[in-house]
Amino acid sequence: TMIALLAGDGIGPEVVAAARRVLDVVAPDLTYEEGLVGGAAYRAQGHPLPPETLDLAHRADAILFGAVGDPAFDALERAMRPEQAILGLRKSLKLFANLRPARLFQGLEDASALKPEIARRIDLVIVRELVGDVYFGDKGRGFTSTGLREGHDLMRYDEVEVARIARVGFETARTRQRRLLSVDKANVLETSQLWRDVVNEVARDYPDVALSHMYVDNAAMQLVRDPGQFDTIVTGNLFGDILSDQASMCAGSIGMLPSAALNHESKGLYEPIHGSAPDIAGQGKANPCATILSAAMMLRHSLDRPDAADRIEAAVAATIAGGARTADLGGNLSTDAMTQGVLATLE
Amino acid sequence: TMIALLAGDGIGPEVVAAARRVLDVVAPDLTYEEGLVGGAAYRAQGHPLPPETLDLAHRADAILFGAVGDPAFDALERAMRPEQAILGLRKSLKLFANLRPARLFQGLEDASALKPEIARRIDLVIVRELVGDVYFGDKGRGFTSTGLREGHDLMRYDEVEVARIARVGFETARTRQRRLLSVDKANVLETSQLWRDVVNEVARDYPDVALSHMYVDNAAMQLVRDPGQFDTIVTGNLFGDILSDQASMCAGSIGMLPSAALNHESKGLYEPIHGSAPDIAGQGKANPCATILSAAMMLRHSLDRPDAADRIEAAVAATIAGGARTADLGGNLSTDAMTQGVLATLE
Ligand SMILES: CC(C)[C@H](C(=O)O)[C@@H](O)C(=O)O
Ligand SMILES: CC(C)[C@H](C(=O)O)[C@@H](O)C(=O)O
Repeated sequence: TMIALLAGDGIGPEVVAAARRVLDVVAPDLTYEEGLVGGAAYRAQGHPLPPETLDLAHRADAILFGAVGDPAFDALERAMRPEQAILGLRKSLKLFANLRPARLFQGLEDASALKPEIARRIDLVIVRELVGDVYFGDKGRGFTSTGLREGHDLMRYDEVEVARIARVGFETARTRQRRLLSVDKANVLETSQLWRDVVNEVARDYPDVALSHMYVDNAAMQLVRDPGQFDTIVTGNLFGDILSDQASMCAGSIGMLPSAALNHESKGLYEPIHGSAPDIAGQGKANPCATILSAAMMLRHSLDRPDAADRIEAAVAATIAGGARTADLGGNLSTDAMTQGVLATLE
Repeated sequence: TMIALLAGDGIGPEVVAAARRVLDVVAPDLTYEEGLVGGAAYRAQGHPLPPETLDLAHRADAILFGAVGDPAFDALERAMRPEQAILGLRKSLKLFANLRPARLFQGLEDASALKPEIARRIDLVIVRELVGDVYFGDKGRGFTSTGLREGHDLMRYDEVEVARIARVGFETARTRQRRLLSVDKANVLETSQLWRDVVNEVARDYPDVALSHMYVDNAAMQLVRDPGQFDTIVTGNLFGDILSDQASMCAGSIGMLPSAALNHESKGLYEPIHGSAPDIAGQGKANPCATILSAAMMLRHSLDRPDAADRIEAAVAATIAGGARTADLGGNLSTDAMTQGVLATLE
């Protein structure tokens, strides 16, 4: 079983190395190949997603991804930016289903801006569509008939794209409280009206799951007012991008939360939801938990090793409950010390 | 000076009547004409925005709007839904600039899900573009070449549309702390790249305002983590819809927050940011403050009566500080009793 390690930019290499140490204990038989991605790849090869890396990603059984993004490349045209690497990987591997769980780890009440009694109730997962929507529709810059500069991006979905992510939403809800909320903007967008129709059609196959619908602006409000009301949320690429980052912050720290991007063959790309954090890169301060937990998701969703996944998740929760805190959580543990803490709890 | 009163659906008539009582005290010379809008108009005339109402809106010096939306009409096709009335008014009157202030009223710490020390620091205004973006681009339902149902909505802006809202952003920042944040998704959207270029160009005329940029997913996180960091935020129609509702909820209650939608002639439409709340309609329980404060914004932005606006705002703040609470704020005052409280504080 071969894992592609795409560490990327900023704190990416530090947190991926930490997760690798944990994997070496719970799944020592895994093998690894490293690939360049993001700004690091651009520096070495002039492109954020070189063909060798894409080939590696296709050959691997799963991908553990760090982060991409480097302000040094912000002046590049869009297609060459580090962020394009992750969009390219998602599209090429058809990773249409992004799972983003959010919950408050016991003991992290202080890290959330929400009142403790509200934050403590957060236990939700956002199922975000990842290869369609306004991210991948026809886009460009041009001129209007009167010579004005304009920019455009087409938001669109077809029924197959909506149905397959809706199914992941219903299946995910089945492993939880059997409540699925679909988020759209059907009072304004035709794309959302199709979305809502198709989700309602797929719902016929899941009579055991309670389905409801909410507009995205209301969902953004409700995620602040009472995030504990949500179980499983399914939504499109753009709304999912915004709501999942919001939900993670409600849960206290983006340094704690993992994500999975899956395709039909359960091939997956696993990455922390935080970014490359160039301001703290190379200082050994990054919180490795989100990436360690992403490795756990990899063991569960792509490698069929739920026991190893459970072990990692329990170790991270116990380490945090024991008071271990990196800087993002208001403490002063290094990346290394936090990783040691998790390793010690594992054994 | 003639004001169009468009009360609309649900609690709209109750809160507009309350605001009218306050206006009668601070600006007794204003005259009013009432118009049907939303579900109420659909019932009477088969259309959510009848020609008479549109004509009234064009003739009026300003519009005080309640709310539209009625679940009884959710099965109608999109173009006939109550919500289309507000979109139609915005477009027809070219109300391109939506001002949405958010702050925590003194004494309402309990109403916010955020920790009091975080919520107390909220004092921001979102300047949302209101007549462009994916709301008004070419849209429709159709079929792909392989016969699949699809839906699409074109996101687009041209440089004139971006520049005029950017100017409102910079001008608004000038009346505040001179810090403007522009929110986009320039790492993915071409529309956002144009947006960012044009905002940077307009910035040359405002060297006294500190401009920064943020991606929308990060903005949604930061609005939860530390909303006190923001002063003035300028963004597009869709991102503004989501972020402004999120910001209002951070500030405690959508029952307290007003909004203005302005065009180049300072003609404005003023409305509470909350919706028609059909579940409590007709019960005399709605919080009238958001609409009363919208009337204050009307006096300031369209009628050039800042003193009267100040009087209303001070009266609402004092009434709340004195402990008056409608149901949404955890109390049991009726709409009438809250309005009486504001009137008593005015005099
Ligand atoms: C880096 C960026 C293109 C990406 C996205 O918008 O999908 C990121 O925000 C994410 O959510 O993984
Ligand atoms: C009712 C709806 C069309 C509207 C919008 O999306 O603009 C509302 O949410 C708002 O923000 O005023």
